[in-house]
Amino acid sequence: MSRPQKPIKSDIGWSTADRISIFGKDLPSEILGHMNLGDMGFLEITGRLPSPDESRMFNAMTVCLAEHGITPSAIAARMTYMGAPEAMQAAVAAGLCGLGSVFVGSTETCAKMLVEALPDPKAGVDLRALAAKTVAEFRAAKKIVPGVGHPIHKPVDPRTPRLFELAKETGFSGPYVELVQLISADAERASGKSLPINATGAIGAICCEMGFDWRICRGLGVMARAVGLVGHILEESRNPMAAEIWHRTEDEASKHLKPGQDHE
Amino acid sequence: MSRPQKPIKSDIGWSTADRISIFGKDLPSEILGHMNLGDMGFLEITGRLPSPDESRMFNAMTVCLAEHGITPSAIAARMTYMGAPEAMQAAVAAGLCGLGSVFVGSTETCAKMLVEALPDPKAGVDLRALAAKTVAEFRAAKKIVPGVGHPIHKPVDPRTPRLFELAKETGFSGPYVELVQLISADAERASGKSLPINATGAIGAICCEMGFDWRICRGLGVMARAVGLVGHILEESRNPMAAEIWHRTEDEASKHLKPGQDHE
Amino acid sequence: MSRPQKPIKSDIGWSTADRISIFGKDLPSEILGHMNLGDMGFLEITGRLPSPDESRMFNAMTVCLAEHGITPSAIAARMTYMGAPEAMQAAVAAGLCGLGSVFVGSTETCAKMLVEALPDPKAGVDLRALAAKTVAEFRAAKKIVPGVGHPIHKPVDPRTPRLFELAKETGFSGPYVELVQLISADAERASGKSLPINATGAIGAICCEMGFDWRICRGLGVMARAVGLVGHILEESRNPMAAEIWHRTEDEASKHLKPGQDHE
Amino acid sequence: MSRPQKPIKSDIGWSTADRISIFGKDLPSEILGHMNLGDMGFLEITGRLPSPDESRMFNAMTVCLAEHGITPSAIAARMTYMGAPEAMQAAVAAGLCGLGSVFVGSTETCAKMLVEALPDPKAGVDLRALAAKTVAEFRAAKKIVPGVGHPIHKPVDPRTPRLFELAKETGFSGPYVELVQLISADAERASGKSLPINATGAIGAICCEMGFDWRICRGLGVMARAVGLVGHILEESRNPMAAEIWHRTEDEASKHLKPGQDHE
Repeated sequence: MSRPQKPIKSDIGWSTADRISIFGKDLPSEILGHMNLGDMGFLEITGRLPSPDESRMFNAMTVCLAEHGITPSAIAARMTYMGAPEAMQAAVAAGLCGLGSVFVGSTETCAKMLVEALPDPKAGVDLRALAAKTVAEFRAAKKIVPGVGHPIHKPVDPRTPRLFELAKETGFSGPYVELVQLISADAERASGKSLPINATGAIGAICCEMGFDWRICRGLGVMARAVGLVGHILEESRNPMAAEIWHRTEDEASKHLKPGQDHE
Repeated sequence: MSRPQKPIKSDIGWSTADRISIFGKDLPSEILGHMNLGDMGFLEITGRLPSPDESRMFNAMTVCLAEHGITPSAIAARMTYMGAPEAMQAAVAAGLCGLGSVFVGSTETCAKMLVEALPDPKAGVDLRALAAKTVAEFRAAKKIVPGVGHPIHKPVDPRTPRLFELAKETGFSGPYVELVQLISADAERASGKSLPINATGAIGAICCEMGFDWRICRGLGVMARAVGLVGHILEESRNPMAAEIWHRTEDEASKHLKPGQDHE
Repeated sequence: MSRPQKPIKSDIGWSTADRISIFGKDLPSEILGHMNLGDMGFLEITGRLPSPDESRMFNAMTVCLAEHGITPSAIAARMTYMGAPEAMQAAVAAGLCGLGSVFVGSTETCAKMLVEALPDPKAGVDLRALAAKTVAEFRAAKKIVPGVGHPIHKPVDPRTPRLFELAKETGFSGPYVELVQLISADAERASGKSLPINATGAIGAICCEMGFDWRICRGLGVMARAVGLVGHILEESRNPMAAEIWHRTEDEASKHLKPGQDHE
Repeated sequence: MSRPQKPIKSDIGWSTADRISIFGKDLPSEILGHMNLGDMGFLEITGRLPSPDESRMFNAMTVCLAEHGITPSAIAARMTYMGAPEAMQAAVAAGLCGLGSVFVGSTETCAKMLVEALPDPKAGVDLRALAAKTVAEFRAAKKIVPGVGHPIHKPVDPRTPRLFELAKETGFSGPYVELVQLISADAERASGKSLPINATGAIGAICCEMGFDWRICRGLGVMARAVGLVGHILEESRNPMAAEIWHRTEDEASKHLKPGQDHE
């Protein structure tokens, strides 16, 4: 082959017979027993250990994204487990596949909106004007403003004030948190609807405060939800609901087609 | 339909307009800021908050399973990300799909072996004899003893002594840890090979000490690896290797078929 | 590195600037327009083109496995599509993840049972005695006889007589088809229940007649169901049911936990 | 609950004890033995049986998308199979997850481009001017023109003339096929590069001719590739390459980090 080879390189880790190193830390002596699972997520995303404040904030955000009850993701995971109980990893995988633009992806689109509106958090811009301009642009493009509004949690998403309280305590309450609050208020005014900052909006803003690339924000939700889906699969194994959902759905969905049925 | 309906029930959580409850805890006030992501995993698996010792041990085990460098899982995730960068959740899902019997599943098979050998950890049985019997049974069935042996980490897997040290510190070093150590020693004697307890073996034993059902042990690896795979996808987005692996593999794999090639 | 390299080799295909070859056939001139999608599946599994009889039988089997209505797989795919409509491939993937031991995997376990009972189809053994022995072994091990019994299709699965009719027409009705029929009859006698050969049982037997390795039988279901799941996703995009299933399930599942609810 | 229930309805099929109906056809008597797997795909997408010409063209397109040799998808599937050989459905799923915007998704983006440029194929518009305008718009937006260009197949993708020949034979060579040809020519002129219509471009155009919604075009690739991935998993089970790719990659990727290594 005349194709020139390019190097293959990863800076994540290495191991020899008696050593394992991850992001430059000795796994047995510097990581195990010293870090929690959220810290490990922070290390994966930043390549460095979190400070105590970063640890607290990052763990709170991922914990917040881990468990949302009976979601479409949880139902997909339970349906999959029903057919392949010997492959629970595939059930978690099936549940993760749906964390796209509609649900968890909103963390990402909110962070993107904020960082594109305010590329430099230290620039002393008028945030009120910036919020108005941002909302106006989304409305002109007939796009939903990401990170605000919730079908159930109105007029306030109860997670948001707590996340912002933690952001204040840990030093991550800055211009992005302020901006998303102004955007929510402005969107409410403009639409006449209740559009509270939802949990993914709050997390998107705090991710910006922590300096994360918006492209990785969805990753927080993906890693967190894997934790929650394991819990759903465990419950499904003990007290299943998948078969009942399946039978009810199948019965109702095809009722109008079956011969000799009362078609109400 | 005459099919009688069965109830659909989940005890994981509930929410109303202003409240969110998970496993009986108020999410904003009792969970956010009070628990780390590993604790959340413990809550999902046991339905209760961990003690400080449980938290430390559980986090150490999941952290240990989160990042294993360039594994087949990581390569699958990177390949998937290359084709669908807009759906990073599907890349993590693809990486998780392979956490089956060969890799992470060994935690589960080791825990199963231990708990089937010693159903009651308080029974004062002769562990030495139990280990010998267990190894003999696996050898007679020509099955690999799970949880021992490693292709690289010889004569000791450096994670194992650290995990057992933490188990001692947190009060989870009991008969199952002793049993897996005796099994490893016995398997080495019987086979004449170096068969150190590997990390999944140590974790399988400690899961038994913590009272987890062996059926959920794979879940620790699945939730943990999702964390690590997000890191691989982030690195792939910045410093990709998937295309190079692909081109090299494709070139070499079909070289013997192509017309006009030197078939070495 | 001192690790010796092993060769990487695939016999599936190759391409150059102006040619593409798959299993030794020129894709443009020998495959496109000459083969249907089922024939392509046959080529993938056997490495050769099917005869007209093989083509007819293989296509009938995969068509039979493609669409089973509102299954757990279809629900998982629809739930996933709801969250990530921009990644329909991930929705199909989620649906496939559950084709394990419980559903489509039964083709595989039935073929395995038949070929282990009768390794040489030309051996002139007493099939009646073999069936009795096989059923007795499964019953002694308290295992379900694979490939027989159906929750709805009683006393006959309407697909089975048609598949066996096609097997006769195409020359694939031999000792394995006879054996599975005897096993079904014997299992019915032994259990006192209606245990007709179901579609996966018929397909497992015909796969044995066609000389397929039982390890690949699940593959017929997996490739076929991908076809059907695309149809479900298309319908979901036009006439969705996922959100309604989700909301009903969530409401009912957490009703017993919510404060101020009537707990019937 | 006060939430009003919405109906759950699917028109795909129904079954009773002795009948199975799919899209209004009796499965045993009207489908099995009468349709091939590609026809089944056509039925899923259109809700009706294909004409002989439609059957020929649809099968050719899906066959063309089924097998592309050692792709990133195939590598992901093989890596997954290595870790979980007991769950081959999850390996196919992992392979499908990457059929996103970069690879198979281009069928969809090409069809979208064509149908947005020419919403009514019967409108007697100047296709030459339309092509020039379309290419100019993509270039102005600094976007890649979808469906043209190939890293290897230059100056002609050998599948394209064959697909267009079949389109002519089956009566699906109309304004969309002409338009994509004019777009390719125009893009070549504008860029000075060789930008032949690739297979996904040809298929995108023919999908438009057949009247398919561009949103479902990716589905042809997804269903087809599932067929090909089963072949890769079968080959991997017999003549594996995943472990060797893994070891080579791991060795090279971390070489620069390991102590005592020659860092070339």
